[in-house]
Amino acid sequence: MPARVRIVEVGPRDGLQNEKTIVPTAAKIELIDRLSATGLQCIEATSFVSPKWIPQLADAAEVYAGITRLPGVRYPVLVPNLQGYERARAAGVEEIAIFTAASEAFNQRNINASIDESLARFAPVMERARADGVRVRGYVSTVLGCPYQGAVPLADVVRVARALHALGCYEVSLGDTIGIGTPGKARAMLRAVAAEVPMAALAVHFHDTYGQALSNILACLEEGVAVVDSSVSGTGGCPYAKGASGNVASEDVVYMLHGLGIDTGIDLGRLVDTGRWLAAVLGRASGSKVTRALAAT
Amino acid sequence: MPARVRIVEVGPRDGLQNEKTIVPTAAKIELIDRLSATGLQCIEATSFVSPKWIPQLADAAEVYAGITRLPGVRYPVLVPNLQGYERARAAGVEEIAIFTAASEAFNQRNINASIDESLARFAPVMERARADGVRVRGYVSTVLGCPYQGAVPLADVVRVARALHALGCYEVSLGDTIGIGTPGKARAMLRAVAAEVPMAALAVHFHDTYGQALSNILACLEEGVAVVDSSVSGTGGCPYAKGASGNVASEDVVYMLHGLGIDTGIDLGRLVDTGRWLAAVLGRASGSKVTRALAAT
Repeated sequence: MPARVRIVEVGPRDGLQNEKTIVPTAAKIELIDRLSATGLQCIEATSFVSPKWIPQLADAAEVYAGITRLPGVRYPVLVPNLQGYERARAAGVEEIAIFTAASEAFNQRNINASIDESLARFAPVMERARADGVRVRGYVSTVLGCPYQGAVPLADVVRVARALHALGCYEVSLGDTIGIGTPGKARAMLRAVAAEVPMAALAVHFHDTYGQALSNILACLEEGVAVVDSSVSGTGGCPYAKGASGNVASEDVVYMLHGLGIDTGIDLGRLVDTGRWLAAVLGRASGSKVTRALAAT
Repeated sequence: MPARVRIVEVGPRDGLQNEKTIVPTAAKIELIDRLSATGLQCIEATSFVSPKWIPQLADAAEVYAGITRLPGVRYPVLVPNLQGYERARAAGVEEIAIFTAASEAFNQRNINASIDESLARFAPVMERARADGVRVRGYVSTVLGCPYQGAVPLADVVRVARALHALGCYEVSLGDTIGIGTPGKARAMLRAVAAEVPMAALAVHFHDTYGQALSNILACLEEGVAVVDSSVSGTGGCPYAKGASGNVASEDVVYMLHGLGIDTGIDLGRLVDTGRWLAAVLGRASGSKVTRALAAT
């Protein structure tokens, strides 16, 4: 297992975009600044997807302008196309993330494009990013199952991950969007991708919809992955199963990693405090069991 | 990893004894009969501890008399001493479970005895059980931490597990009572015990208080353990952290095991239905993420 793991905190983007509550811009800025103070090295700050699609993050430029960017911390933002890229760059963004899915059905329903079309759309974004010295992270969703087509062939996951890496993504995050996977399948998926893309360029992104996220992460750590996406307070439900859990809680991941003797550079106490604060902002119980256990003792 | 895992369902005992709601006797009987129909091979039915201590299970004899015992399914009951043993036997019980802790402080607070005194108390019970042909399961609690003394030396866990096995317990269940453990520590603990007690005579019993139960189980499966305790619907909060989770939900364990290709003999659909029914009886949301996810789709 790796001696050190980098957590990519996706709460401000992937978390908040799936919460019903519209969080005020000032609270989003406070959230990111609080997260910056925990020792996190990478915080996905917002999304420059059209506000028509994701009204929760319509204030992306204001949020990005308002946060205090600490040295040594990266603040990528999600970008769907060249137009989003331009808006992000105008806001001063220095790192972006792009996204596609391993499932054809999911891509059709989600972005109205085939996998190959979605990759083709990113080519000009990647070209501009390269010219501008902007780092790009890539997401592959539905790597262990799709809400529309069901099973997703492993070969499709490998092909899409390889394509994103070949396009120039410094890291490819493999996402079990519906949280349906179990550790053996997670391990086999990662192993297949790692045969084509260097493990050092891979991250895992698990949802806790079926309670499997930490065991899936453990299996992937055993395979050597050293970057894990998670969301403070487990923010962001599962959009494909209303009322069910979505993103795994960062607090619970960090608790496990520290227990395993793996360094994250994160102050768990501060992270728990931030998650508790966010749960209050959202008016709901924390999605982190660690936070709930600590609150109860 | 083992090809087959036996789940020991502890909901009717360990679960219900830690729920605030007093469940009617008829509902307890229905719960056990529903569990019997899922394919479970071992269901801990109730406890013959004094009703003064555990009023939730004061109807132990009525419950045991009321259930339909299926061939091939075992229905152990918890027994604290010779008096409890006599009551259990009078009720027709054919298998019992005894319990102690690896922590001196916990034993003192919980049963007002040192570890050695608690073991000495069980000697006459074991003698009678042997003479009566009654099988005995042993529990060791606080194997990864204690709510009173904090850390628990590994040597104490090994000593207590070895003592229960030497007393004649056919199986020793190692319990992380406060759910504080992480996979590396769980693995090291199991490995240390398995150096002294055969792995085939060991079970693991994890609480999900800090969200770590499934990853701890995964690590222990990798070590070769093939018996896992769990509680349908995650019944039973954590008595040491009010409002926090206790027992790991059987549904989530079985989902993981089946996903790993491990046979349990259990019909997950029926188990989920039973957990959903029980949650309604208890008037609370299911503690199983699998059940919540399936209900939401």
